[in-house]
Amino acid sequence: MSSIVEQGYGVGDVISLLWFKRSLPRYCTHFMEICIMLCADHGPCVSGAHNTIVTARAGKDLVSSLVSGLLTIGPRFGGAIDDASRYFKDAYDKGLTPYEFVEGMKKKGIRVPGIGHRIKRGDNRDKRVELLQRFARTHFPSVKYMEYAVLVETYTLSKANNLVLNIDGAIGSLFLDLLAGSRMFTKPEIDEIVGIGYLNGLFVLARSIGLIGHTFDQKRLKQPLYRHPWEDVLYTK
Amino acid sequence: MSSIVEQGYGVGDVISLLWFKRSLPRYCTHFMEICIMLCADHGPCVSGAHNTIVTARAGKDLVSSLVSGLLTIGPRFGGAIDDASRYFKDAYDKGLTPYEFVEGMKKKGIRVPGIGHRIKRGDNRDKRVELLQRFARTHFPSVKYMEYAVLVETYTLSKANNLVLNIDGAIGSLFLDLLAGSRMFTKPEIDEIVGIGYLNGLFVLARSIGLIGHTFDQKRLKQPLYRHPWEDVLYTK
Amino acid sequence: MSSIVEQGYGVGDVISLLWFKRSLPRYCTHFMEICIMLCADHGPCVSGAHNTIVTARAGKDLVSSLVSGLLTIGPRFGGAIDDASRYFKDAYDKGLTPYEFVEGMKKKGIRVPGIGHRIKRGDNRDKRVELLQRFARTHFPSVKYMEYAVLVETYTLSKANNLVLNIDGAIGSLFLDLLAGSRMFTKPEIDEIVGIGYLNGLFVLARSIGLIGHTFDQKRLKQPLYRHPWEDVLYTK
Amino acid sequence: MSSIVEQGYGVGDVISLLWFKRSLPRYCTHFMEICIMLCADHGPCVSGAHNTIVTARAGKDLVSSLVSGLLTIGPRFGGAIDDASRYFKDAYDKGLTPYEFVEGMKKKGIRVPGIGHRIKRGDNRDKRVELLQRFARTHFPSVKYMEYAVLVETYTLSKANNLVLNIDGAIGSLFLDLLAGSRMFTKPEIDEIVGIGYLNGLFVLARSIGLIGHTFDQKRLKQPLYRHPWEDVLYTK
Repeated sequence: MSSIVEQGYGVGDVISLLWFKRSLPRYCTHFMEICIMLCADHGPCVSGAHNTIVTARAGKDLVSSLVSGLLTIGPRFGGAIDDASRYFKDAYDKGLTPYEFVEGMKKKGIRVPGIGHRIKRGDNRDKRVELLQRFARTHFPSVKYMEYAVLVETYTLSKANNLVLNIDGAIGSLFLDLLAGSRMFTKPEIDEIVGIGYLNGLFVLARSIGLIGHTFDQKRLKQPLYRHPWEDVLYTK
Repeated sequence: MSSIVEQGYGVGDVISLLWFKRSLPRYCTHFMEICIMLCADHGPCVSGAHNTIVTARAGKDLVSSLVSGLLTIGPRFGGAIDDASRYFKDAYDKGLTPYEFVEGMKKKGIRVPGIGHRIKRGDNRDKRVELLQRFARTHFPSVKYMEYAVLVETYTLSKANNLVLNIDGAIGSLFLDLLAGSRMFTKPEIDEIVGIGYLNGLFVLARSIGLIGHTFDQKRLKQPLYRHPWEDVLYTK
Repeated sequence: MSSIVEQGYGVGDVISLLWFKRSLPRYCTHFMEICIMLCADHGPCVSGAHNTIVTARAGKDLVSSLVSGLLTIGPRFGGAIDDASRYFKDAYDKGLTPYEFVEGMKKKGIRVPGIGHRIKRGDNRDKRVELLQRFARTHFPSVKYMEYAVLVETYTLSKANNLVLNIDGAIGSLFLDLLAGSRMFTKPEIDEIVGIGYLNGLFVLARSIGLIGHTFDQKRLKQPLYRHPWEDVLYTK
Repeated sequence: MSSIVEQGYGVGDVISLLWFKRSLPRYCTHFMEICIMLCADHGPCVSGAHNTIVTARAGKDLVSSLVSGLLTIGPRFGGAIDDASRYFKDAYDKGLTPYEFVEGMKKKGIRVPGIGHRIKRGDNRDKRVELLQRFARTHFPSVKYMEYAVLVETYTLSKANNLVLNIDGAIGSLFLDLLAGSRMFTKPEIDEIVGIGYLNGLFVLARSIGLIGHTFDQKRLKQPLYRHPWEDVLYTK
């Protein structure tokens, strides 16, 4: 226990023990901490933040407010990270070329998760993606899944300038490198972890920090009961 | 079991058995059903409906959507019914005159729960309040708490035209008449029921019907992920 | 509004308006009320009741306790009703014989939802199933889906004595008769309602009554914090 | 952003920015990380873990399982940390002697939060408490609240051997030293933070790590639907 302080262990090491039931190398647990830090913040406008704020303004306690926001996390909000890891893993393990992978997805009518951004472009990449890639190139023994994701990005950028590898795709592919490169998991264990969707856990934990912060904000500001503007419903729905 | 169909039992009778552990007279269980029907509907703008809609639009399942909305129910949204029953009971049982009750609350800085409406006035009462009062006057053996609430309203209306007895106050006071008039509860049992806040249960159950309806609406309309307008945050907060 | 009392409307009529956006015939709304009444009760041992009880014993409010129990409702607890309606509808609409339906499911490795009971047998049927069937035969203009479910049961009973049509199967098939027989829904509307899973809403609403009751029980009994027995974990897991 | 990696920032620094809206010294954010690490783990028997496990075994998704467990956190499970900080702050700021504080609480019929343990004794202290105290003595500019808590413990230990300062009391008192000693908060800001209950946020975040771990365990082990043993209800309730 005292080694926690003396040896500079962090939150990632506790996650390693409680989720993976083994002590992963520090570069792995540090990588998970960086993912948490990068995903913690978000504006007050996303679904989760909005629900948390509305619940806090109804005078409810911290747990109710947090939970009301967490419940929005799923296929459309946060779900892309796990999907990215699943599809990239499947494509790479099958030896598909980026062309085969992307065009195969297109035929099935599925957007490639982890690719595409509303604002970012090929010549204006997401700083967070670059940070993660730099960290992994420096510390990971192998970044083969990430390199594959970059090749996929090269292909998609040739089709449209906003089809960049986004933060979901970067985390999704690098998590595969973490699992495979650490040599601490068997192939079936890796399949299980990707199948269950451990990255959703990282996202949920990260966003909890931001959602708790939103709750405290509302309580400090003593905000009254929220009521959605009536006109918005009349015109939007 | 078959008596449920043959004898025309309703949802209120099941509530009676599972919450009160006894079979209340039909006028009592009918009264609870009317309360549920009157509280089920609400526009899409209230806190609970909004959260449920946002969660459903995030692609989450029915339970997550419903629950995200239910979590807003508390002191500011739905809580007035129980508070009305507690304060009216306390004032009536102590024999306070409406003047003593209202002015005493004022001194403590507490608004009288169950009194006041944003739109309704003394000459334009809430139809639902009148309906409940008519039902109770016809079927209840005693409506002493309701009559007391009406006397309180007479006093508050003399101070301001919008200080009418609202639906929360009507349900709160009539529920006291239900408990006392049925002669099926001891005094300590009544105190316990009012203390625990059984009326919150009726409100939660009623609103669940509406919230489930909102979830189905969003799924039918295939609404996309909600994002709160950014300008709203800039100007309002 | 006043017609609610005068014309003997019930909770089912409010559900009809808020979920289906139309006023269904009284036999339809009465059927939904009976389903709610039959599903409201359950022992304290099922997943939902247990979670609600544990949360109430942690001293949490009614909404948190209820919600903690509702969150267990899903594929394994409550989900069979919707699945039964989907599979029975698909099989009947495709004109499959009971033999083709049951054996086809078997080949796909899927248990027929709505068939099978831990205790009930062909010569000791569930009273609730019989009650629903009698109600429908008396009031529904057509019970073709129910009759199909009975034919399926006849076939499955020839294979094993406990493969009876259970309450999930009865509600699932009769709900199809309600939708088709009322002649108030188009075919695409029926597909949508069955696809979205409206029956889950009925189950959730019904169980809420029981879960709220469990919360009140714990608060009345002033139960302390729950702690799962340590030996149970050691031996079971 | 890139400073996150280069300068060795951790999860505590992100919490500092999102909850406190300022960049606290590294020893403060490190202290919060240690609290998270110390509170993350817990056996599968506590209320939260049990609910999460039951929900995961009902086949529900990660968020539903986590949330079902979080909802048990409140007055009886996790609430002692905030209460300890509130009572210790009040007593210290009023200049009460340990005797006056403890006996005053006794008169009001309130157990001193943060004092007492089921197993630990004066001669067998909780290692985690010692670790936190050592860290604070080394890094905090002032530990006046902690020293006060130790004096209180000395007095309570003179009354009974198990009335030790527990982990809740240690975190609660040291958090006061963090707020006051960092000289980055005004007195009203500190009152607000203690009033709102920021420590509950730390506890919720910490336990989320453990609860997510329990969910993954159940999914890996492919556990079936939980059903509470019937005998337990018959005998215990």
